[in-house]
This record gives sequence, structure tokens and C-alpha cells, in this order.
Amino acid sequence: MKDYRVKPGSKLTLSHFDTDDTGDYKKTDQDKANAQAVTQQLIGKLGELQERLYANGSRALLIVLQGMDTSGKDGTIKNVMSGVNPQGCKVVTFKTPSAEELGHDFLWRVHQKAPAKGQIGIFNRSHYEDVLITRVHGLISDKVVKQRFNQIKEFEELLSESGTVILKFFLHISKDEQKERLEERISNPEKRWKFNDGDLEERKLWKNYMEAFETMMAATSTEQSPWYIVPANRKWYRNLVIAEHVVDALENMKLKTPPAPTGINFDTLKIE
Amino acid sequence: MKDYRVKPGSKLTLSHFDTDDTGDYKKTDQDKANAQAVTQQLIGKLGELQERLYANGSRALLIVLQGMDTSGKDGTIKNVMSGVNPQGCKVVTFKTPSAEELGHDFLWRVHQKAPAKGQIGIFNRSHYEDVLITRVHGLISDKVVKQRFNQIKEFEELLSESGTVILKFFLHISKDEQKERLEERISNPEKRWKFNDGDLEERKLWKNYMEAFETMMAATSTEQSPWYIVPANRKWYRNLVIAEHVVDALENMKLKTPPAPTGINFDTLKIE
Repeated sequence: MKDYRVKPGSKLTLSHFDTDDTGDYKKTDQDKANAQAVTQQLIGKLGELQERLYANGSRALLIVLQGMDTSGKDGTIKNVMSGVNPQGCKVVTFKTPSAEELGHDFLWRVHQKAPAKGQIGIFNRSHYEDVLITRVHGLISDKVVKQRFNQIKEFEELLSESGTVILKFFLHISKDEQKERLEERISNPEKRWKFNDGDLEERKLWKNYMEAFETMMAATSTEQSPWYIVPANRKWYRNLVIAEHVVDALENMKLKTPPAPTGINFDTLKIE
Repeated sequence: MKDYRVKPGSKLTLSHFDTDDTGDYKKTDQDKANAQAVTQQLIGKLGELQERLYANGSRALLIVLQGMDTSGKDGTIKNVMSGVNPQGCKVVTFKTPSAEELGHDFLWRVHQKAPAKGQIGIFNRSHYEDVLITRVHGLISDKVVKQRFNQIKEFEELLSESGTVILKFFLHISKDEQKERLEERISNPEKRWKFNDGDLEERKLWKNYMEAFETMMAATSTEQSPWYIVPANRKWYRNLVIAEHVVDALENMKLKTPPAPTGINFDTLKIE
């Protein structure tokens, strides 16, 4: 399985990354079905590993999802995470900040939503919007952008040093693929409610967004908190790549069944 | 399907409710398998209905789970809710209140965790602990208990008038069944970490707890926010009853696909 990890400090050019890539799988129905079967197995494993994470209550996993509109953030959560016990999995969708939130630094509201020990936290959009949308629209200076990159790195270092494993996925679709997906929303009356006029305005800024993503990922991919550029034109391959990385991350924690409470002699204990 | 709903103002005697009840199903492997198949269908339906709830963003569902230790609150969440998209489902586990929480009225922390529009919220234990454990241990007077019953009813009325449908389930197991489940935790080294010394102390107060549950459910079951006494000795039947009520509640909302945004001419809209 290809890794797609962004090396810390690398210079990125997103156009060199194939949005249509399907790794070792061919773009045939047969290979698609094979990939889906593997994904299902991984999802089963994910369910077991999450139970262990929850039982241990000593580590956490934070999954950050970023990408252009229609890139599949919601679809990833639905397809990869729906088998997980919701008691141990919290999804946070970051919307336009409220007046109270704007009264604080940009990481204030994010920190509050970091996953507790034992939990998988999923950020559907995240603090990275504060160096993307704000930047593309010229709402913050280059100096502030640079400052925020450092603040983000230090914030994530705090989480990571406190036991949270962080995975950051950029769902990489092509501009043509977005066109198709938006057209599908428009032509299907059942899906029109998802259509947002603003999406077309953002689409016009595609190039600027790609540049913002490139700089941002190059600056904030670290050993402890890496970015992955996930080829996302094919939903089945996107799901496979993400399921694989999530299962890997949980397996690497090497969590065992937690020990029994001490001070109790279980062999002589009687329930009246 | 039997209803198990507590009629508002009824006088309750929990010992008259059969913890072993399996409704129209016999206690055979065949009937158990049939019930499990029906439950799986309901869970599939639940997934679809939840998507619609989320898309609409106009209503919410609050599920309250109460019951003695080992009655199956965690198991219900795992087995009935694991198919749901975690983006639309938030589980809240209420633990011993923090110093800050104790500085406020008992509903303060609960109100903050009420489900937002579009969401299913699950309370694993809830504000009802504040008229159960506190009462059994004599930490609050009868006068305060009565006051809290009213405060709870008014709080739930607020939620319900604001679009939240509330379902409250008491998972009803027998004292013998609890004994078996605790013994299973003790004898299986893989499960010992779940064992909590305090559980045995609470078990000694079984009768007091049953009385507290009886008064509490009689006082706080309303038309809008009913209690259900779910026979919970058989896990497969418990799951079926709860899945049935949750699906019913969502179906009764009669939610349609949300309308397309206005002011856009979808027939002439072109994506560049």
C-alpha cells in the first residue's frame, strides 16, 4: 500500500499528485470490488481496535479531514466510521466561528473539542481552515499565516505528547471531478438541498486554494502529526487508504486489555 | 409489539414487570434468531432515518438510558447504534460531577449536552442520577427530590417544545441476572477491568434503588417524554424493543428530503 505521507519540510506541488491514483488496484469493477472487500475487513478490525482504545482510556486518536467542497469528507466519515461504537467516537464539524469564538485565539474552540483519552475524534474541517479560507480571501497577512503554522505545530505537539495520535488527511480531487459532483447535486432534485451557492465562488479560487494547501501541508506535516495526500477521485480507493491508515495507527498503539483493578482478590470474591 | 410505556401518573411496582419477558417471541434459539434478524432490519432503517434527520436539521432525538450496573446501557449503544453515522450521533456519559459542575444547578451540565437539531443524542446515565443515587444515599431531602421531579419535567418540556423528541428507557434486569453478569466479569480475566468494587455496594441497596426508580418514573413519565420499562434479562429482546421504539420515533417525525435552496435556477445553472 502506498503511503501518501507528506515528508516534513518538503516542497509540494499538488498537480504532481494523481487524484485518480488507485495504487496497486486497477480501475476495473473486479479490483474495485476487491478493494471494497478489504475495506470492509479493515472496518471490522477498526471496531475491535476502537473498543480496546476505549477500554484502555490511556490514548486518543485524532483524525483531521480537509479538502475542497465535495471532496468526500462527509462520505469518508459515513463509509469508514459508521461501524464504530458511537460511544467512543466524536465527530466535530467546525462551522463559521461564533462571536464568542472570534473573541478568542483561533485554537481556543478547537482545543475544547480535542478527543478525550479513550476516544476517536474526527474533525470535519478544522483549525486548518484558519490558514486556508482566511488566507485565500486575504483576511490574514503572510506574517500571521506563518505565525499560525507554528502555533498549530505547537498545539498538535501538546496533544501528541499527551497521548493523542494525529492523522491528517487531505482529500485530493481534481477540478473536473468537483464539477461532476456539483452537477450531480444540481441535476438530482433529491440532492439539491446540499447545494450551496457559495461553493461556486470558492471553486473560482481553486488555484489559490491549491497553493494554500501546498504551503500549509509542507509547513505543518511533522513526524508526530503527518499529512497524507489521499487520491480521492475514486471513493472506494479513498475509503481504503483512510481505513488502512486508521487501523495502522491504532495497531501501532499496541494496546492490551486493561489490567484488573488492584486490591481485589478475584479468586475468593463472592457476589451475594 | 408490546409497548412498555409508563402511563403518566401511574403507580408503579417494578416487581410486577417481568425482566424475562420476550413479548411475542418464545425463548427458543429459533425465535431469538428471528428477533435478531428483525433488529438488524430496524438498524438498517435507523441509519436511513438518521440521515434524513441530519439533512433536515429541524428536529432532534434524545435517548436516555438508565438502569442498574450491568443492565446493558453500554451494550445497547454498541448493538443498536453502531450502524449509525457518528457525524449525527453523540453519546454523552455522565460521570460524577466536577467541582465546577457542582457549582451550578444539576441541570446545567445536562442542558449543555442536549442534542442539536439534526442530531441523535444518547445519554448514558443522565440527570436522573440526581434523583436516584443521591436519593438512595440520603444526600437530598424528599422535598428536594419532589422539586427536582418538577424541574426535570419542565426542562424536558422545553426541549420537547423546541423540537426534540425524548425517549427514556429503563433497562430492567433482575437481581439474579445482575449476579450472573457480575460473576462473568469476575471469572473472565479479559473482563475484570470492567469490575468496579463500588458496584457491590450499590447492589446491596437494590431494593432502595427499585423504589427510587418506581417513584421517579411515575413522576416524570409524560406524554411528550415517556419512560419505557424494557425487559432486559435477554439482551436480544432488549435490543429489539429499543430499536423498534427509536425507529418509530424517527418515522413519526415524518421528515422529508429538505427543499432545495431558493433563489437559484437549477435548470439553467452551469458549473464552469
